[in-house]
Amino acid sequence: MITTVDVNCDMGEGFGAWTFGGDVDSSMFSLVSSANIAAGFHAGDPSSIAVAVDRAIEHGVGIGVHPGFGDLVGFGRRHIAAAADELVNDCLYQIGAVREFAARRGRSLQHVKLHGALYMHAAEDDEFSDALVTALRKTSPELPVLCMAGTALEAAAKSHGQPIVREFYADRHYGDDGRIVFTRDVGALSPAETAEKVRLACRKGVVHTVTGNTVPVTFESICIHSDTRGAYDLIVATRRALAEEGIKVSSFADPTPAPAA
Amino acid sequence: MITTVDVNCDMGEGFGAWTFGGDVDSSMFSLVSSANIAAGFHAGDPSSIAVAVDRAIEHGVGIGVHPGFGDLVGFGRRHIAAAADELVNDCLYQIGAVREFAARRGRSLQHVKLHGALYMHAAEDDEFSDALVTALRKTSPELPVLCMAGTALEAAAKSHGQPIVREFYADRHYGDDGRIVFTRDVGALSPAETAEKVRLACRKGVVHTVTGNTVPVTFESICIHSDTRGAYDLIVATRRALAEEGIKVSSFADPTPAPAA
Amino acid sequence: MITTVDVNCDMGEGFGAWTFGGDVDSSMFSLVSSANIAAGFHAGDPSSIAVAVDRAIEHGVGIGVHPGFGDLVGFGRRHIAAAADELVNDCLYQIGAVREFAARRGRSLQHVKLHGALYMHAAEDDEFSDALVTALRKTSPELPVLCMAGTALEAAAKSHGQPIVREFYADRHYGDDGRIVFTRDVGALSPAETAEKVRLACRKGVVHTVTGNTVPVTFESICIHSDTRGAYDLIVATRRALAEEGIKVSSFADPTPAPAA
Amino acid sequence: MITTVDVNCDMGEGFGAWTFGGDVDSSMFSLVSSANIAAGFHAGDPSSIAVAVDRAIEHGVGIGVHPGFGDLVGFGRRHIAAAADELVNDCLYQIGAVREFAARRGRSLQHVKLHGALYMHAAEDDEFSDALVTALRKTSPELPVLCMAGTALEAAAKSHGQPIVREFYADRHYGDDGRIVFTRDVGALSPAETAEKVRLACRKGVVHTVTGNTVPVTFESICIHSDTRGAYDLIVATRRALAEEGIKVSSFADPTPAPAA
Repeated sequence: MITTVDVNCDMGEGFGAWTFGGDVDSSMFSLVSSANIAAGFHAGDPSSIAVAVDRAIEHGVGIGVHPGFGDLVGFGRRHIAAAADELVNDCLYQIGAVREFAARRGRSLQHVKLHGALYMHAAEDDEFSDALVTALRKTSPELPVLCMAGTALEAAAKSHGQPIVREFYADRHYGDDGRIVFTRDVGALSPAETAEKVRLACRKGVVHTVTGNTVPVTFESICIHSDTRGAYDLIVATRRALAEEGIKVSSFADPTPAPAA
Repeated sequence: MITTVDVNCDMGEGFGAWTFGGDVDSSMFSLVSSANIAAGFHAGDPSSIAVAVDRAIEHGVGIGVHPGFGDLVGFGRRHIAAAADELVNDCLYQIGAVREFAARRGRSLQHVKLHGALYMHAAEDDEFSDALVTALRKTSPELPVLCMAGTALEAAAKSHGQPIVREFYADRHYGDDGRIVFTRDVGALSPAETAEKVRLACRKGVVHTVTGNTVPVTFESICIHSDTRGAYDLIVATRRALAEEGIKVSSFADPTPAPAA
Repeated sequence: MITTVDVNCDMGEGFGAWTFGGDVDSSMFSLVSSANIAAGFHAGDPSSIAVAVDRAIEHGVGIGVHPGFGDLVGFGRRHIAAAADELVNDCLYQIGAVREFAARRGRSLQHVKLHGALYMHAAEDDEFSDALVTALRKTSPELPVLCMAGTALEAAAKSHGQPIVREFYADRHYGDDGRIVFTRDVGALSPAETAEKVRLACRKGVVHTVTGNTVPVTFESICIHSDTRGAYDLIVATRRALAEEGIKVSSFADPTPAPAA
Repeated sequence: MITTVDVNCDMGEGFGAWTFGGDVDSSMFSLVSSANIAAGFHAGDPSSIAVAVDRAIEHGVGIGVHPGFGDLVGFGRRHIAAAADELVNDCLYQIGAVREFAARRGRSLQHVKLHGALYMHAAEDDEFSDALVTALRKTSPELPVLCMAGTALEAAAKSHGQPIVREFYADRHYGDDGRIVFTRDVGALSPAETAEKVRLACRKGVVHTVTGNTVPVTFESICIHSDTRGAYDLIVATRRALAEEGIKVSSFADPTPAPAA
């Protein structure tokens, strides 16, 4: 039974004059404990990073970097067949960029989480995951990597001694293999379904799969995607469920629980 | 009379599969003491930064960041009418990115030097220069800024206490106001002319202008542009002139002179 | 007294996964007679162009190209100091790209209208306007150019015999010089104010300026910016005012009036 | 026995200030009969397209469009997992852009040839090839598509009645399956080897494979890659071999042979 959990969300995923859903970020920052800040490759630009970092600090939210494939028009959702070392360089570039904005305010990065197709690539590709973690050992040995349990990235991080934080996907269906299933295939979750899913995962450490089975889930952080339609309602329902269960929401880096939403 | 001087050059200014003049960088790294590494906005990409940082370390060359306007197709040579804070964010982003590659090898940044139209903008614009230096005071209080004497950027740096390194442009003509004159208006300098210009500037602290006058120059670093046609020959001539004058070439951050070319 | 007028609006100004205000385009297409379709430099991408062209055809709306500066992060609102011939090439590139999507459906382009800072640049710069019109004479001698009366672009088009359509800016304040005044300086117009402004301009050919004076306006098209906050309400109010005045809304290329909104 | 053959080469593959090998294009234009002009996605920009189109006209070289994946930093060599209709839109955009520059000079496009990873994708992917050809039937029913014999793209073009021109890769090794083998695996060809390969292919319609077998090749055009190291020497050797065999070099669109190199 979990008593404290992190809630992470992608933030700063506009670009230039464009935002998602007007300005969803402002309201989301008060509901999460960790922010994955887009770093300019799949979304985000220097000025949006500056804003997102400042908002995270203002709300006591952990500052995370969210590196993606260099593919603005595809929002980082399309796999690009790049070499492992190119991708590691892309990640270092993005991490350093966001780290600088945190440093301007005297803060450190809390975590790194890959985005979209790059997250999926790391989950499955041993070579890239190993090369990425090898680089992180040099630049950021204390920086936790967000990942799903059972992935190549988790294995690489464990093998090199890089800290990890495992995620539970509150707004996605799970398959019997413990992996998430594409929303386009199985439909979206309602706020009530999301809340119930979170409740079960926290209390029992399991999730019901799309086939009706039950599989175990291990996590220290709950992820809600900000670009999921209705993300705000999902996260409000999640926070309410956590509150009802008496589970504190707190950044994994911070022994102080986040203020109640 | 100068006895030790830095020689700086722009490096890593290819992009993806493109380089300048084949691969001029490899030979240039052995001739300079400081490298201004393109950071992805006007030139450079994460993998070219990785290469340039590693070459700088290998040759004992100081690692500098070379932020430019976000204008790859224009190579950062075209002014973009952006707000001061946008440009500061662009600079922080680029500085952080390159810093991360230095950090991977356990190194620090040696300096920052703006590129092209952004360099000219900072030379003339008090608001941007002040905002940039204000940000650098927070992220990099020890990081010297390369600039020309008499510019807005020099004034801002002095006013805030940010270290500066002043440059002498060995491959450009000067006007009576102590500013450089566009090559397209007055023609290029030969290696012999460049060498003679360097000699005079180091010995007497003056430069002959395009009108035949003599104006004072104050500098701690000599700049040769790598994209000047024949840059390699200019820098060889410059190094030879310095050697003949008994002037040591050494990064301004480093009390140890660079090895003779 | 005007009896038929065109209403033009910028369309397809999202990029990749980003749109403005959710999906404002779908509702706007039923309210305008001419669409200025973003062509990938300040906004828009090949797939958004494909969608916008098809929607324009579906709604009987004239297909216009909306070339801008190559500056996605700045949404084409920042002047870039590029040479006239570079900018002409940028425009040709964008015009050809959109023309191809129209051709796929057996349609022709109706007009070209420059975007943002490039529109302002053409209004003031004789060299660029002349070079652009010279190129259009070769590629598109029948293609009208949208512009404001009294600008360098209007003069160049007239001098070369390129057709022009003059615009009235319904959602912007005017100064005594007949130029528009920046909204950030004088505040936005309400739907009622916009409607009244349109009514006066159509009936009397004048507009009240920010100082209380009255200046003449000459136009064949009314422009409402889709990225003005509340654009949908402004355009509904404009259409209602036009209907009450008995003024038909029709693309300038089309003798058949657009269906009533 | 072939008596007339086209020689095609990729052209205009610089970007902004960057070129390949200084300015290889100028000398290459006098040696080919067809140019595949980079259209801005993997390389090229509006001004480089303008230059390449004008050079092609000046040298009597057929103007082809060379659409690639939108991946400047990867030079279009990395596969991007995009949907077929997105890629078709990318192609239409690029084709229209180049077509406009040809139209400015009163010329038509001669052909379209996909670049790099997009060329390989079309060779293998029925859905994309079919969608692309379907679009070309609407915009350019007379425009030949360059492809290799035996590919999905050839099949789609044949099935829809789109003209095709098949290519022989003079600067690449072939495998027993008639496909080209990556240079990085088998090494580069010398000018003499290339010339001998061309001679055999033209006279006998066969090519020796990397395993020592002989397979048939069918083609109307010979391709030399401009970014192959030593491309200039390869193409000179190819032209000499063709001249010695009495084979005329002529654009497939043009009954008039190209002038002797």
